[in-house]
Amino acid sequence: MNRRRLEEFCDAVFAVTITLLALNLAVAGPGHGPLMHQVADHWPSFVTYLISFATIGLIWVNHHALILNVAVVDRTLALLNLVLLLFVVLIPVDTATVAKYLALGGQDARVAVILYAAAFLGMGLSFAGIFEWTLRSGRLPQPLPERARWMARLRFGAASILYLAAVAVAFVSPPVALAIIGAVPVYYIFEHLPTVGSPAGGRQ
Amino acid sequence: MNRRRLEEFCDAVFAVTITLLALNLAVAGPGHGPLMHQVADHWPSFVTYLISFATIGLIWVNHHALILNVAVVDRTLALLNLVLLLFVVLIPVDTATVAKYLALGGQDARVAVILYAAAFLGMGLSFAGIFEWTLRSGRLPQPLPERARWMARLRFGAASILYLAAVAVAFVSPPVALAIIGAVPVYYIFEHLPTVGSPAGGRQ
Amino acid sequence: MNRRRLEEFCDAVFAVTITLLALNLAVAGPGHGPLMHQVADHWPSFVTYLISFATIGLIWVNHHALILNVAVVDRTLALLNLVLLLFVVLIPVDTATVAKYLALGGQDARVAVILYAAAFLGMGLSFAGIFEWTLRSGRLPQPLPERARWMARLRFGAASILYLAAVAVAFVSPPVALAIIGAVPVYYIFEHLPTVGSPAGGRQ
Amino acid sequence: MNRRRLEEFCDAVFAVTITLLALNLAVAGPGHGPLMHQVADHWPSFVTYLISFATIGLIWVNHHALILNVAVVDRTLALLNLVLLLFVVLIPVDTATVAKYLALGGQDARVAVILYAAAFLGMGLSFAGIFEWTLRSGRLPQPLPERARWMARLRFGAASILYLAAVAVAFVSPPVALAIIGAVPVYYIFEHLPTVGSPAGGRQ
Repeated sequence: MNRRRLEEFCDAVFAVTITLLALNLAVAGPGHGPLMHQVADHWPSFVTYLISFATIGLIWVNHHALILNVAVVDRTLALLNLVLLLFVVLIPVDTATVAKYLALGGQDARVAVILYAAAFLGMGLSFAGIFEWTLRSGRLPQPLPERARWMARLRFGAASILYLAAVAVAFVSPPVALAIIGAVPVYYIFEHLPTVGSPAGGRQ
Repeated sequence: MNRRRLEEFCDAVFAVTITLLALNLAVAGPGHGPLMHQVADHWPSFVTYLISFATIGLIWVNHHALILNVAVVDRTLALLNLVLLLFVVLIPVDTATVAKYLALGGQDARVAVILYAAAFLGMGLSFAGIFEWTLRSGRLPQPLPERARWMARLRFGAASILYLAAVAVAFVSPPVALAIIGAVPVYYIFEHLPTVGSPAGGRQ
Repeated sequence: MNRRRLEEFCDAVFAVTITLLALNLAVAGPGHGPLMHQVADHWPSFVTYLISFATIGLIWVNHHALILNVAVVDRTLALLNLVLLLFVVLIPVDTATVAKYLALGGQDARVAVILYAAAFLGMGLSFAGIFEWTLRSGRLPQPLPERARWMARLRFGAASILYLAAVAVAFVSPPVALAIIGAVPVYYIFEHLPTVGSPAGGRQ
Repeated sequence: MNRRRLEEFCDAVFAVTITLLALNLAVAGPGHGPLMHQVADHWPSFVTYLISFATIGLIWVNHHALILNVAVVDRTLALLNLVLLLFVVLIPVDTATVAKYLALGGQDARVAVILYAAAFLGMGLSFAGIFEWTLRSGRLPQPLPERARWMARLRFGAASILYLAAVAVAFVSPPVALAIIGAVPVYYIFEHLPTVGSPAGGRQ
């Protein structure tokens, strides 16, 4: 397997996904009331757009740092990446569903946010799976010390645990669940994955 | 012809295709009954999404291993790849058609699955055609021994034969035909194409 | 300017364009008559899909051979490529318009095919413009002999002249105009652009 | 962080964005009056298509020259690029909104053009932010002389100031605001960003 081609394929999927995200912001057009009102009523689309864009953007940055550290890119890693992408490409559709139902509240809003949180949970677990795979002997140029492994696991685990919490909270309060999902990328913006990202950080 | 550019072009098409696949999962939105029911009635979309995603994902992995082994990338190989992509890009649309008609059953479901299986058959035959091309003298760094060629042909042939069977079975039972189509990527996940993939497997 | 990035950007546009082309093949879905009839009535979509796919595919192959020969990739070349892409991305929409109106015949069919032919004409002229730019001194590793230049100009000119003819013919007979447009990629499949493509043909 | 992967990701987003732009040119199809009239009434779509395509195309060219000059590609630069892309992917949707409302005039046309100009303003400011980041010590192979920095800042500032003006003017005259937005890429076509672009201009 070729590192460049694996990265390019994943990057293309990430890129198309964030571009499709924006299409959810389209307004119905003339004959659906003043544009100003259409845009104002559209606020859930903007909120979910920001959350989904930030999350996929951060997944891209972290995926990058993770793969850059891998010594051997093989078929298994390619398959693990396909599982990650299986969930990533669901995000534009789930984002649109939340945008359509959030403001309506009730059971439909709960279902929409649960689906949304579940897609992120699947993405988080797939990413953690790729990380676990990189820890196997010979996958990293120099093996991570045990303590660093556990800190990194905690970091990745944090995201999956938060997404799991979001799924549970969504049964009670979709907006709070959404706030939890939105907090994850904010956390990763300030989280530099030192054990994984930094050594790769300055690499050209 | 430049190997990188051929790979990038095919990867971009594969990437856009799997991302578009997920758009078939979009629900109709408010005013079409409870979201839970809309999602439940949507099961054919989820089944066909998984089948199509897994198939394109595996085609990507195998395409990768195949091209990585080619010594000379020329205009003919580029044209053969365009034939492969001609069928690959049909998959999101054919997937959507199956998703719309499968649950309705009857003649329409049969036609939908036949179209779907036919697209995969075209993809399988194009891929086998690229493989045949690589067997010509000078296309691989070291020519494959005759026996390895036949084993590889059998492997690729297996997929096309299964897709051909799916086309035939679809006239009788669309669900069974779908099960056959879904079995192909599962087979390739555990099939490492040793004669083609493995030498390339660890390459950087 | 960086050759790789110019190629990647153009390839991504070509790739997304051919993938979007296939979306024109989507059927209306349940409630619009037997699927078999919907597909049969859809024949203009299939014909125009094949023509557009083949044309963009060949443009990709020839663009590749052309850029591979360029010694210096600069801002001007990037701008010329943007002009080419300005027409390339129009093709999915113009293809859909022809598919919708061709079978209806009359004035609308004429207008649809004229728009379609005009997009290809713009693409052909832009491509010829890029080729002319490469002929300027220092743009190719070794300058083309005068005779080779004229032969190449004739080759590229042929496409633009055929597209111009298609625009004119479309006023009288849209199907004949379509046949002319469809003949161009067939011509380029057997046309190896020796003076430009071949030296690059075997390059890695 | 890896320069290639950052460039590829941004290029893929730029490429998908300009390809989606063209989809705004689709006509309603049969049953909506003569095609000729549909196309004629579609003029705002063509005007905004040209403006948006030219702007994203130029952003791509300048982004290219800017990143090519950066000595160190790190996580911060990746995040800054994500902010740029956050606005870039909004353009197809905002372009469609202007196309739908411009001809109607009135308050809706004003709102549509304000949203459109605001997206470009966000894009311009993000791009200026990336440029400012490159000026920090060690980010460029050789630091820019103070005077060159200010000239470059003026250049980038020019775009953002024009977009800010367009937002203001849109409250009074949407068409004039659109003319201002359309003038920016024309300016950058003849503007070679010597202090940033030229040294990179001929690089391979």
